[in-house]
Amino acid sequence: MTRSFSELIEKKKQGRELTDEELGFWIDGVVQGSIPEYQTSAMLMAVYFRGMSPRETSRLTYCIAHSGDVVDLSSLKGIKADKHSSGGVADTVSIPLIAVAASCGALMPKMSGRGLGHTGGTIDKLEAIPGFNVNLTPTAFMDIVSRLGGAIIAQTNDIAVADKKLYALRDVTATIDSVPLIASSIMGKKLASGADVIVLDVKWGNGAFMETREAATGLARTMVDIGEDNGKRTIAYVTDMNEPLGNAVGNALEVLEAVQVLKGHGPRKLVDVILALCGEILLQSGISPSIEDGKQRARDAIASGRALDRFAAIVEAQGGDSAFIDHPELLPHAAVTLEVTAPRDGVIASVDARRVGVAAMHLGAGRRTKEDAIDLGVGLTLDVKTGDTVKRGQPVAVIHARTLDEASVCEQELNAAVSIGNAPLPAWQTIVARISRADGVTVFK
Amino acid sequence: MTRSFSELIEKKKQGRELTDEELGFWIDGVVQGSIPEYQTSAMLMAVYFRGMSPRETSRLTYCIAHSGDVVDLSSLKGIKADKHSSGGVADTVSIPLIAVAASCGALMPKMSGRGLGHTGGTIDKLEAIPGFNVNLTPTAFMDIVSRLGGAIIAQTNDIAVADKKLYALRDVTATIDSVPLIASSIMGKKLASGADVIVLDVKWGNGAFMETREAATGLARTMVDIGEDNGKRTIAYVTDMNEPLGNAVGNALEVLEAVQVLKGHGPRKLVDVILALCGEILLQSGISPSIEDGKQRARDAIASGRALDRFAAIVEAQGGDSAFIDHPELLPHAAVTLEVTAPRDGVIASVDARRVGVAAMHLGAGRRTKEDAIDLGVGLTLDVKTGDTVKRGQPVAVIHARTLDEASVCEQELNAAVSIGNAPLPAWQTIVARISRADGVTVFK
Repeated sequence: MTRSFSELIEKKKQGRELTDEELGFWIDGVVQGSIPEYQTSAMLMAVYFRGMSPRETSRLTYCIAHSGDVVDLSSLKGIKADKHSSGGVADTVSIPLIAVAASCGALMPKMSGRGLGHTGGTIDKLEAIPGFNVNLTPTAFMDIVSRLGGAIIAQTNDIAVADKKLYALRDVTATIDSVPLIASSIMGKKLASGADVIVLDVKWGNGAFMETREAATGLARTMVDIGEDNGKRTIAYVTDMNEPLGNAVGNALEVLEAVQVLKGHGPRKLVDVILALCGEILLQSGISPSIEDGKQRARDAIASGRALDRFAAIVEAQGGDSAFIDHPELLPHAAVTLEVTAPRDGVIASVDARRVGVAAMHLGAGRRTKEDAIDLGVGLTLDVKTGDTVKRGQPVAVIHARTLDEASVCEQELNAAVSIGNAPLPAWQTIVARISRADGVTVFK
Repeated sequence: MTRSFSELIEKKKQGRELTDEELGFWIDGVVQGSIPEYQTSAMLMAVYFRGMSPRETSRLTYCIAHSGDVVDLSSLKGIKADKHSSGGVADTVSIPLIAVAASCGALMPKMSGRGLGHTGGTIDKLEAIPGFNVNLTPTAFMDIVSRLGGAIIAQTNDIAVADKKLYALRDVTATIDSVPLIASSIMGKKLASGADVIVLDVKWGNGAFMETREAATGLARTMVDIGEDNGKRTIAYVTDMNEPLGNAVGNALEVLEAVQVLKGHGPRKLVDVILALCGEILLQSGISPSIEDGKQRARDAIASGRALDRFAAIVEAQGGDSAFIDHPELLPHAAVTLEVTAPRDGVIASVDARRVGVAAMHLGAGRRTKEDAIDLGVGLTLDVKTGDTVKRGQPVAVIHARTLDEASVCEQELNAAVSIGNAPLPAWQTIVARISRADGVTVFK
């Protein structure tokens, strides 16, 4: 067993393709423990250097998806849609998106994860809502989705079991940054989650995992291929994560930002992404004849208050108290707030998304390691975006911290994250590309 | 700890050089168990793909050498010489070489290993001699070397402790074939063995680990650099291992071939290699003014019988009964002998060294895995070399087996290993290159 797996490592090391059976043998061995970790880590490093063909990547993902429970959504009548983001800062998309799409007739049974490092996680954010239950029984979850069109629960440990083992090894063996490994990890969980349509939001920029548009587009294409090869309609968007997408970073703060979006007062770039993804979901769900029509329905749902009402209904159905929607003080909040002001007149040259995310993590809004506890009330809100003109002394952010010391440290980090120049800047695209198997890559300029 | 070692894997993965301290941290962690095997195997695969600079390779070797006991030979007055072969078939060099060199005044305190796969090991061969003790105390070992100029014992487990752990991992993670890893494994043990002069015999060809001259020369240069960087006078020879070097394959049979060499009746190519290495050792030990002079002293030692007498004295000193020298029947021998004859007239086009080695291993002369037991009496002797003219029915080999069935299987394997053509063949060089830091690469044509 051990001996024969070393032959598969050798094969991959030489750059040859593994067969479906060989990939299955590997992933079975990972799950059952019959292939030792030292062999899997050598294989992961060989995959890092040699890559995987589209066929191998799709099959690896299939094996990961079937290494644990595969959710059966068949009792929900109609097309089920799922959404995944590759992780960002002030990226409060999923919560308002589900409410808007559900209020337009889509079915979104969403399973989400927690945040790690400088990026936030939807489940952490929802736990800021008093009473909100992210661990519903499958029956309760399906019931809410069938009644309201959407619900959000935490991914269970029984989904894509191999992924957890592989990810834990990759994390300590410097094999995170491999496109086939990233793509199969994300899509393995998506395939196991049982939706018919998968809409991906792949971030590029210094706050994202992929630091160039090209890298993000490559990852997006790989994931679209994996999804389609495995029978899922899969569409990917590549969006900007050089600056934070919305204004709020931190769990309760982002829930409040979601409410602002649903009330029609969301920050423009964040709303643009939500509308684009919602338009796509409504198109792929057979509700809208075009993305534009879908976006218009989404705008109407927000303007009419239907989307906000649906959000309140989902919160209540999941055991939460929706009173926070009109009474933000009911959410956890920090003891100290500190306003950060512009040190001089000028134009915001950049708001470094990664640095902002790290600053919020240092406040306690995020986790350095999986074991860290987080503080749901802390974080920061930004008042400026790249290209904005500012005057000396004008507020650029508000820090929400546990102590004045932590707020001061964060203030320094924010001052380093926000740079002020003199020249006006050209506007740039938040949504840079859409990728589908049918239409290929569409670049937005 | 775990976290920081993953940063070193990342560094190597990116192709950057590890510092002396980082290499020390790794090897310490391997020995102490503080770095888990799954991280070391990922590092080994990254080294496979990225290689190591000469400085890194020399330092890694230093760390391996110092991961266990370093033998102190200082009580032996004079220059101590060591010899290492990268492993071959019918490669009965060490045993006669030590007797010849010792009889010429060299000091050769030799620590050897056991055989694995299709290649033999000196310690296995010596155990065919009744009473021969390969596990002397250090005091007894040093005493024999100081009196007789040579002794051969088995490497202890306390030498180069990290190498055993690294090798065991490499064996099951497809990371054997990396020049810096091969070179540091061999040279780590050599540095720890304490000699002043190291003479290396690096084989090339289908029976060797390195299948091309270029690969063998590259490995040889790397090992010369490692030795010299660590203060050892190191010379490497690259020699042919496309056909078996001598005639005998199998443990007792190779001991008898060693006796034939010492009696002046050794096969030409085997004797050529022994004379070259002995000439080098006598030069580097300050006994001879040139390699040629050293080779002549070696020839004289054989012709005069002094080398054979010295061999008998070393055997007796190590507890063996030297009576087998004139009474071969005292050595273990096989129950069945079977003569293999040429199936047609022609010229021997090739004698495939690897196939011959594997055929002997199947008889029981070698080990498939470290745990296998071996039979000291079995093996085979070849009567022909590439380029020899043969007549149909002429003996080409004799098989020494436990059973007729095993002999028949071996006969088929030998028939496949020995191919007969029609055209005469040009002679080719057994010793193809000498490599030293002072003289660079000298190619023999």
